[in-house]
Amino acid sequence: MKYPVIVALDPPRGRDPVTWSIKVIDSLRSKPAGYKIGLPLLVRAGTRGAADIASVMPPEALRVADLKLADIGPVMILTASAAVEAGYTHVIAHPFMGVEGGLRDLADYLRGVGAELVLLVSMSNPGAVIYFDQFIDEFVLTGSRLGVWGYVAPATRPHIVRRVREVLARSPNPSAKIVSPGIGAQGQRPWAAIKAGADYEIVGRSVTRAESPENALENLYGSHAP
Amino acid sequence: MKYPVIVALDPPRGRDPVTWSIKVIDSLRSKPAGYKIGLPLLVRAGTRGAADIASVMPPEALRVADLKLADIGPVMILTASAAVEAGYTHVIAHPFMGVEGGLRDLADYLRGVGAELVLLVSMSNPGAVIYFDQFIDEFVLTGSRLGVWGYVAPATRPHIVRRVREVLARSPNPSAKIVSPGIGAQGQRPWAAIKAGADYEIVGRSVTRAESPENALENLYGSHAP
Repeated sequence: MKYPVIVALDPPRGRDPVTWSIKVIDSLRSKPAGYKIGLPLLVRAGTRGAADIASVMPPEALRVADLKLADIGPVMILTASAAVEAGYTHVIAHPFMGVEGGLRDLADYLRGVGAELVLLVSMSNPGAVIYFDQFIDEFVLTGSRLGVWGYVAPATRPHIVRRVREVLARSPNPSAKIVSPGIGAQGQRPWAAIKAGADYEIVGRSVTRAESPENALENLYGSHAP
Repeated sequence: MKYPVIVALDPPRGRDPVTWSIKVIDSLRSKPAGYKIGLPLLVRAGTRGAADIASVMPPEALRVADLKLADIGPVMILTASAAVEAGYTHVIAHPFMGVEGGLRDLADYLRGVGAELVLLVSMSNPGAVIYFDQFIDEFVLTGSRLGVWGYVAPATRPHIVRRVREVLARSPNPSAKIVSPGIGAQGQRPWAAIKAGADYEIVGRSVTRAESPENALENLYGSHAP
C-alpha cells in the first residue's frame, strides 16, 4: 500500500463492468489500500463477475462491498453472503435498522466467516443531514458494541469525521477505522478527511476514469503531502 | 387478482432461485395481486434471472423489487435501473437518505421510465422501532411530496399501519397504497394489516414453501373473511 486510499470501482454505463474494473486494478495494483464495489456493480456483474474482479486484487488489498445493507438480519445475511463468497472482506451496512433483528445478526454472521462489518454513520448528500446527523454519537457507540471494524463518514463534511473520531476516542474500541468517500468528483480535496481523523479516503471517478488511473492517483495524492 | 396479497419470492438457499420462483408463480398465477423479489434474489439470479422470473408473472401482477435502496441518488438509480430493465414496476427505497441528492433523483428517474416508488416508513424487527418510529408522519409527508405510489409499513405492528393511513388521509394523496409485510412466518395473521388500513399484505414462506403454494394461499386467505 502506498496511499491510504480505497478506489471505488464504479463502471460507466454501457461498459462491461468486469473488464473495466480489471483494467483499473491492473493500472493501480497495490498503490491504493483497497478497492470497493457497489451494489450496482454486484447486481450487474453478478457474484461470478464480482469474484473475477476480486481475484485480480493484490492479496493485501481491502476488498470492500459497499452494499449499504438496510434490511432485517436474515435478508442482509443472504445479500452479504453473496459478496463474501465472491471474495470480499468488508461489508458496509446502514445503522437505522437497529441492533435487534438487524445489525446483530449481520455482525455475528460476518464474524463467523472472518469478514468485517463497516457501519455507515452519515452520508454526503444534502438530504441525509436531516436524519443521520441527529444520531452520529449513538451510531458510533452502536458500532462499538457490535465490534465493527470501522465506520463510513463523509469527506465532504470533515466536522462529521472529526466527531466520529472524538466519540471513538472515548469508546471501547478507539482504533476502529474511519473510511471517507467524497474525494475528487464529489468535491473534497485529497487528504482532507485523513487530516480530520479518517484512516482511508475513497476515490472514484477522478482516478478510475482517467486515461491512466495510476497517474491520476499519483497526481492526486503524490503531490499533496498531508 | 383474487386476494390483496403480494407474494415474496424468497428462494431457499441451495435451490436455483429462477427455477424455484417460476414454479411458485406457476402454482399461484393470478391469485395474488403481485409478486416481490428481494435484493438477495436479484444479486444471486442476476438481471437475466430476475427478468426470466418477471416474464412468467401474469400481465396485471404488480412486480415489486424490494431493493431497500439507501444510497445517494445516482447510485440508487443504477441499481433500480437493473430491476426496471428486468421488468419490475415498483421499487422499494428507504427514507433516511432524505430528498435532496437522494429520493428526489430516484423518484424522477422512476417517473421517467413509468415505474413506481414505494417508500419504506418502518420495519418489522425490534431494533428498527428506535429510529424509524420517530419519523413516521414526516416520512409519509415526504413520500406525498414526491408523489410515491405507496408505502411499506409492518403488518406485525398494526398501529403503525393505522398511523400511516391517518396521516395519508390528511395528505395531498390520500389514496396512496400501503403494503404490509409480516404475515405468516413473521407472526401476523392474514387480513390484520388490511383491517388496519393496508391495501396489500406481503406473504412469503408460509405460502411459497408449502407443497402447494396455491392451496396454502387459499387456506390462509380464503377461509378467513376480512
